[in-house]
Amino acid sequence: MALPFYRDFTLGILGGGQLGRMLMQPCIDLNVSTAVLDPAANAPCSSLATRFQQGSLQDFDTLMAFGRSVDLLTIEIENVNVDALYALQAEGKHVYPQPELLAIIKDKRLQKNWYRENKIPTADFVLVDNLEEIREKKTFLPAFNKVGVGGYDGGGVVRLNSTADIDKGFDAPGLLEKTIDFACELSVIVARSTIGEIKSFPAVECVFHPEHHLVDYLLCPARVSKEIENLAQDLARKVCEKLGIVGVLAVEMFVTKSGEVLVNEIAPRPHNSGHQTIEANVSSQYSQHLRAILGLPLGETTMNQASAMVNLIGAVGHSGPVLYQGLDEVLALSDVHVHLYGKSETRPARKMGHVTVLADSQEVLLGKVKLIKQLLSVEAI
Amino acid sequence: MALPFYRDFTLGILGGGQLGRMLMQPCIDLNVSTAVLDPAANAPCSSLATRFQQGSLQDFDTLMAFGRSVDLLTIEIENVNVDALYALQAEGKHVYPQPELLAIIKDKRLQKNWYRENKIPTADFVLVDNLEEIREKKTFLPAFNKVGVGGYDGGGVVRLNSTADIDKGFDAPGLLEKTIDFACELSVIVARSTIGEIKSFPAVECVFHPEHHLVDYLLCPARVSKEIENLAQDLARKVCEKLGIVGVLAVEMFVTKSGEVLVNEIAPRPHNSGHQTIEANVSSQYSQHLRAILGLPLGETTMNQASAMVNLIGAVGHSGPVLYQGLDEVLALSDVHVHLYGKSETRPARKMGHVTVLADSQEVLLGKVKLIKQLLSVEAI
Repeated sequence: MALPFYRDFTLGILGGGQLGRMLMQPCIDLNVSTAVLDPAANAPCSSLATRFQQGSLQDFDTLMAFGRSVDLLTIEIENVNVDALYALQAEGKHVYPQPELLAIIKDKRLQKNWYRENKIPTADFVLVDNLEEIREKKTFLPAFNKVGVGGYDGGGVVRLNSTADIDKGFDAPGLLEKTIDFACELSVIVARSTIGEIKSFPAVECVFHPEHHLVDYLLCPARVSKEIENLAQDLARKVCEKLGIVGVLAVEMFVTKSGEVLVNEIAPRPHNSGHQTIEANVSSQYSQHLRAILGLPLGETTMNQASAMVNLIGAVGHSGPVLYQGLDEVLALSDVHVHLYGKSETRPARKMGHVTVLADSQEVLLGKVKLIKQLLSVEAI
Repeated sequence: MALPFYRDFTLGILGGGQLGRMLMQPCIDLNVSTAVLDPAANAPCSSLATRFQQGSLQDFDTLMAFGRSVDLLTIEIENVNVDALYALQAEGKHVYPQPELLAIIKDKRLQKNWYRENKIPTADFVLVDNLEEIREKKTFLPAFNKVGVGGYDGGGVVRLNSTADIDKGFDAPGLLEKTIDFACELSVIVARSTIGEIKSFPAVECVFHPEHHLVDYLLCPARVSKEIENLAQDLARKVCEKLGIVGVLAVEMFVTKSGEVLVNEIAPRPHNSGHQTIEANVSSQYSQHLRAILGLPLGETTMNQASAMVNLIGAVGHSGPVLYQGLDEVLALSDVHVHLYGKSETRPARKMGHVTVLADSQEVLLGKVKLIKQLLSVEAI
């Protein structure tokens, strides 16, 4: 049964960044009051939440007090104190995604082991505890060395091509993952509600920036065959169902040159690779997450139009109060939707916004993506 | 030139109702900070504005202080102290729509005279100052008697069929307007920016509730010929251009059975008859208003899909904390978008929300409108 979400009800959100901010937009539509906890006083959600609290996401007591003050708790960032979430759940609080899933997903070592145990195709890997163990397993190279906990937005990952690179590795618990000679990367956002209903969005193709390890732009539909699309959909739904998650789950995948689809990483929340759903699909990933955790019927995920999404990333060499150079020119383009994240200061490679482009053909989309990247840059004044 | 809207900038909004609330959603996208003034402490915008101030919209000093604290001032309700807006404008404050236009539009007597002076086709009328004058002009009946200032949402209007009805009229400055034997009612939302760019949305057909005098549902495209659509578009743009308004203007029109298009009323702000643009058009009336007053290029108004919009109106006999009966069932329908306005208490005929329906055919739209009206009712717990 749906929670009485529009009256005497507060949704608690751990993390007050851009994902929380975009989650708050459908909260406005359904009149869901929000309480947001974030360590930064000027976090993107700070002025929009019904109640904003500055505080640590790691501190047990802070999370307990915050969690007890709300009716339902969700996250927009994985890196929170999961012990507190277990304790809140034990007190009867609804916590979605569930703490036990968050514990698995936020530790890449547990996440990769979970794939292996559940026969989810993924790149081969070995666990390593420190640099010494990487040296012992040097025959596994070339590989990515990933730290278990705390990597985010391209941090905590380094490519080790040969033994000469090992000193660049992490002297911390992590893993070595075989490099995959992939044809492209896909992401499927899938949602599962409190009553077990599952719906997935069409796959998007993620094109990464060669330097930042962040998504440079994405395309939907992806430039893959119907068979690959179906494999990706099936895989995403399988992961979602096996986890039994409540909320949206982003499943990032590699498509190998031989046509296999492997799970790369998952995120138990709205994701950068689903921003375009705001304009391009009947429901957005944000309204879908809200429906899923509130126990409402899931929304239609059908694509209205083909789309591309360009991340607006802080230019190298620019730190300080933000200036979006070329913004007027971009706003003059047809079927272009600008989202600024409410961060007053830019830094190199910081995610400062995104632009969604809709068009009937992939050529037009790619042309507009190129144009937007030429016109718009995120600088400091 | 566009204002530097995303940094060290505050948009002031007079009125904190649902129109302001929906205007704040594109403000989030473009990171426009907002300050909202409304007499009700729990107004729909109260928890969403960057800064919310409870206060009178009629008090000169309150408006002056509020206006001086923001960078740009707009309205979401006409009934504000226009003298204060003139004074703020004289101090160099940007005020859109312009005070001199607001003064004309908020007084139906001035508004009707303006149509006559500018050769805008409209229903014939005579001004009356009191009941005595209505009696003197009884040969003008049947007519609507409208008060000059203060009518809203069907208030301030009464139909006088014959001399026997005259006692139902208003003993206040107003007008008598000839009843029009219309085939249908249309509304065109048109926007004009600070640099004079004008764009209009496709006409919508407004079907009024027989009892409330509020829009019961609307359809877009309207069920009219291409010729009538063009007449309506031309008329709306003509009114917009002659006024020289900055912001969006809703132009409500009658289509007579002989195929004339007459202006009924105009509203210098986002309007109930443009809610469906949020989902159905490339740009919404709210983002368009924001672009217009910020001096940004206007957005595309193209319709993505045919749509209908159903107002959720408080059921008769129900006053108190709101319960949306049947909401889950409506959320389970495909391509249906629910907007609740954040009003904790319902009252008979109070606008509590709306539902937008998208579909490829008018038959499907009308079927879903009927279904939504059967499924959903706005009651008190």
